This record gives sequence, C-alpha cells and structure tokens, in this order.
Amino acid sequence: MTNALAEFRLPIRVYVEDTDAGGIVFYANYLKYMERARTELMRSLGFDKPALFDDMQFVVSEVSLKYHSPALLDDQLSVTAVLSKASRVTFEMTQQVFRGDELLVEGWVKVACVNSATKRPQGMPKPMFESLTKLFNQKLKNPI
Amino acid sequence: MTNALAEFRLPIRVYVEDTDAGGIVFYANYLKYMERARTELMRSLGFDKPALFDDMQFVVSEVSLKYHSPALLDDQLSVTAVLSKASRVTFEMTQQVFRGDELLVEGWVKVACVNSATKRPQGMPKPMFESLTKLFNQKLKNPI
Amino acid sequence: MTNALAEFRLPIRVYVEDTDAGGIVFYANYLKYMERARTELMRSLGFDKPALFDDMQFVVSEVSLKYHSPALLDDQLSVTAVLSKASRVTFEMTQQVFRGDELLVEGWVKVACVNSATKRPQGMPKPMFESLTKLFNQKLKNPI
Amino acid sequence: MTNALAEFRLPIRVYVEDTDAGGIVFYANYLKYMERARTELMRSLGFDKPALFDDMQFVVSEVSLKYHSPALLDDQLSVTAVLSKASRVTFEMTQQVFRGDELLVEGWVKVACVNSATKRPQGMPKPMFESLTKLFNQKLKNPI
Repeated sequence: MTNALAEFRLPIRVYVEDTDAGGIVFYANYLKYMERARTELMRSLGFDKPALFDDMQFVVSEVSLKYHSPALLDDQLSVTAVLSKASRVTFEMTQQVFRGDELLVEGWVKVACVNSATKRPQGMPKPMFESLTKLFNQKLKNPI
Repeated sequence: MTNALAEFRLPIRVYVEDTDAGGIVFYANYLKYMERARTELMRSLGFDKPALFDDMQFVVSEVSLKYHSPALLDDQLSVTAVLSKASRVTFEMTQQVFRGDELLVEGWVKVACVNSATKRPQGMPKPMFESLTKLFNQKLKNPI
Repeated sequence: MTNALAEFRLPIRVYVEDTDAGGIVFYANYLKYMERARTELMRSLGFDKPALFDDMQFVVSEVSLKYHSPALLDDQLSVTAVLSKASRVTFEMTQQVFRGDELLVEGWVKVACVNSATKRPQGMPKPMFESLTKLFNQKLKNPI
Repeated sequence: MTNALAEFRLPIRVYVEDTDAGGIVFYANYLKYMERARTELMRSLGFDKPALFDDMQFVVSEVSLKYHSPALLDDQLSVTAVLSKASRVTFEMTQQVFRGDELLVEGWVKVACVNSATKRPQGMPKPMFESLTKLFNQKLKNPI
C-alpha cells in the first residue's frame, strides 16, 4: 500500500490522436500523459475536482523532459508520478513513462498553487498539504 | 471586396502537431482549422474576443464533415467560411478545406449563442446580427 | 455477453487537456473519445494494431455530431460504439457519449478501409469482416 | 536582414483549441507554438518538408520550459527561435513566447537528426549544417 502511494502508476494506451506523422507519439503529448497521472495521484489521495479547481488552481510553472525512445501507436504505457518536493504553494514531481520495463521518457514538473480569481500564489488547503507531506515521507521510508 | 467577405478564406499551414501516424492530418483537426476560419471571419466583421466571449458564448451544436482526400505535413491549405443561415440565436456555416484547387474536406457547422453564465440560448448582440445578415445578403447577390 | 458486444462501452475520464476556455470539453475532442471506443471495440473482437495498421488502414470518410450538453472537467463519461452498417470496404458506427444516464453527444462515423501504400479502397481481411458481421447480427437480435 | 535571421520571430494567434478550462493556453501547447517557429525558421533558410522529412527526421530529445505568465484566448503572440548550438547530429534552440513586450514563456529545445528508417543518429545534410552554422555565427556577431 505504502509503495503504491509512494510511486503512483497509471496505465495509458496510445491512440491515433496521440501520434504524429513520424509514426510516434508527438512529444508534447507526454505532458498530457503526465498530467493524467498527477490528477489520478491527487484523486487517490482524496482530492478531485472540487478540491482542485474551486477557489484555487494548480498551474504548471516549470517542466523539463528527456526523451529516450519513442512510444508507438497502440503501445500500452505506464506513467509514474513521484512527489519530489512539497511546500504550501508549490510542489514538484518526477515522472517517468514506461513501456514494460523500458524507460521511454523522464520528466520533472513544478506546480504552483494560485488563487483562481487573482492568479496570485496561495497556500493549498491544509489537509491537502498534510496528505502530500505524508506521501513524501512514505517515499523517504520506502525508496524505490 | 464583396466576394472576399461573402466567402472568407484563411491560409493555414499543416505542422507536425496536426498529423497522425497515418502520415496525414488527424481528421478531428479539420474542426480546429474550420474554427480558426470562423473566428477570423468574425474578426474581419469587427467582432473579436470582447464581443464574442464576454457575457455570451458561441457553442457548436452540430457538425457534419466529409473527407475527400487527406492533407499532408507541410501542406499549405486554405479554409473557407460561408454563412449559410443566420438567426439571432443560431447561425450555420458551410466550410471547405482546399490544397490549391483540390477540395479536401467539406464541413457544415451549426453554432448557437448562449449566455456565458446560464448556458441558455440568448440572442446575439444586434450589431453582430446585422453584420451577419449583411454578409448573408451579399452572398445571395454574389453566389460563388 | 451478447449485449456487451452489441453495444460496446468505454469509460473515459475528462482531463484538463480535453477542455477549453469555455470551461467545457472542446467539441473536436469528442471525436478522439469516439475513436478510442472504436479502437477498443475492435480490440475486444481480437483485432489490434498489427491487424489494423499493417498493410491496410482505416480512414474516417464522414462524421456527423450532435451536441446536446457539454462534458466538464473531471467528468466520468462512457462512450458507446454500435456497428450500424458493414461491407468489406466500409463500415458505419453510431456512437454516444454519456455522463451517467445523460446523453451529451451523439455521433455517426463512416470508416473506409484503404491500402496503406496506395490509399485506395481495399477489402478488409475476411476474419475481420466476419467478426463485424457477427457483431451486426447480434445487434439485430438484441436491440438495445 | 542579419538580425531577422539571427532571431526568427513568428506571429501566432491563440484560438479556442489552444486553451483549457483554466481560461489560459494549455501549457503543453506552447511546445506546438515553438515547433511552428522552428519549422518556419528552417523554411526561411530554404529547408522545407522534402529536406526535413525524406530520408532523415528531426526528433526532439530534450525540452525545458519556464512559464512566467499565461497567454489568453485571442492573444496575438510572437514566438522566437534562436539557434544556441549546432553540430551535424544535434542542434539546440532557445525560444521565447511574447505578448507585445511581455515575456510569457521561455523554452530550450534539443533536437537530434536521425535516419527515418533506423531511427539511429545521422548527420544532417551538409548544406543544412552550413546554413545553421552561418545562422549561428550571425548571432554571435549580432547579439540581441
């Protein structure tokens, strides 16, 4: 249970919509896959849309991606999300895209919490921060 | 001048983002091209974002597309928008995607005007309706 | 079992990538959802990428969509695919997008089978046609 | 002329397709904007699709993005592409997205040249490398 939380993993199928004329997944689309994994990780912690989008909003402030090998049409992938840093107003995740055991893409994403109306930084709700902190500590105790 | 208005035409270049593993433009993406043409047609009539998105919103309520021949990476296309029907709460456009003289895709789109908050049907502003009516009458006088 | 085949149904979650500034799913993206359902329907019949993309290719030749009500961020949808017509070189599907019992979007899609190299019409493999025919007949016997 | 080449700049309009439910441009889509600018930069040097996609292919191997401020629906942006490093098998570009004078997004992209069939690294054609080298040297002589 602890490990499952510490490294969240979402299965994703590659459809035609994801590919480009090079016959591979269009490189911008891995950001979509990674966001799906982050969203499902938050849902697994009990935070879904009402929590995430009502008076505050998470916005991506930095990303960094390294492409090792392309995913292809119809591939069954799995996408991980591991919390690597968390404060009240930002958190960071390292994410990986696998096909079986093969690492295809690595990513690092920094997310900021802002007020929906003003778009100014705003601390996330305390229960959410506590969940993320707990998740982060589990990872320390259960390095993968 | 009259004809230019009656049949609006927007040049669009095909980039990698638009293609799929079949080596052609992904069929859903022609809807994006057609929306760009409709948006620029409205802009050419003097209606840009403030007019189009402040207290009302246009939502697509029906579309119909016929694909004759695929567009390819790097193709230079032109996309038309011709008003085929207009009332205060809905309008219809017929649209075509060309590569040179070759007709690749034909579309018909029905758009409804709704209140941004309630999402209920709402008449578009009178100046906008008058512009569309004028555009429609030009088309009748100058059939293409 | 018969009914499950006759009306294929795929659960789909709405992510941020699917939405637009209107706060709703961008209308072109329902075509992506519908293609995912068709792909999974074919997979459930035993036809996956090697069967579908090696020397032949399926291309969408016509679509028609009616939008009743918008899907929203984080909605859990289900998307159906029902075979409504099948010959060796084309088949047609009617598709629906639901949120719970609420019908949001209806679509009709005509797909043609072409040779991957020449892009000319080509009959689909006999086992595939037989599967589709069997599926079609099940539907007749088990109207939903 | 020299400066125009040294910092290539492409005007890009934000359409509904580019936005998300947060009311801003979906962060993955800036990668599309940046690719359009790189493609047009290469075209301005005389290299279009035949040169770029026939027996070789450019694939993105690393990207890094910093988001300062969001672009909004209907914004008129300009996207730059400046060559920051070039060898026969890889090149790097720094790219910026502006709304007027306001810097919204900064990116760095590393592109590798691979053989279309084998997907193994392959030196780009000599005339292309010479053009990129010339472009790079112009930048040195005309720092912006």
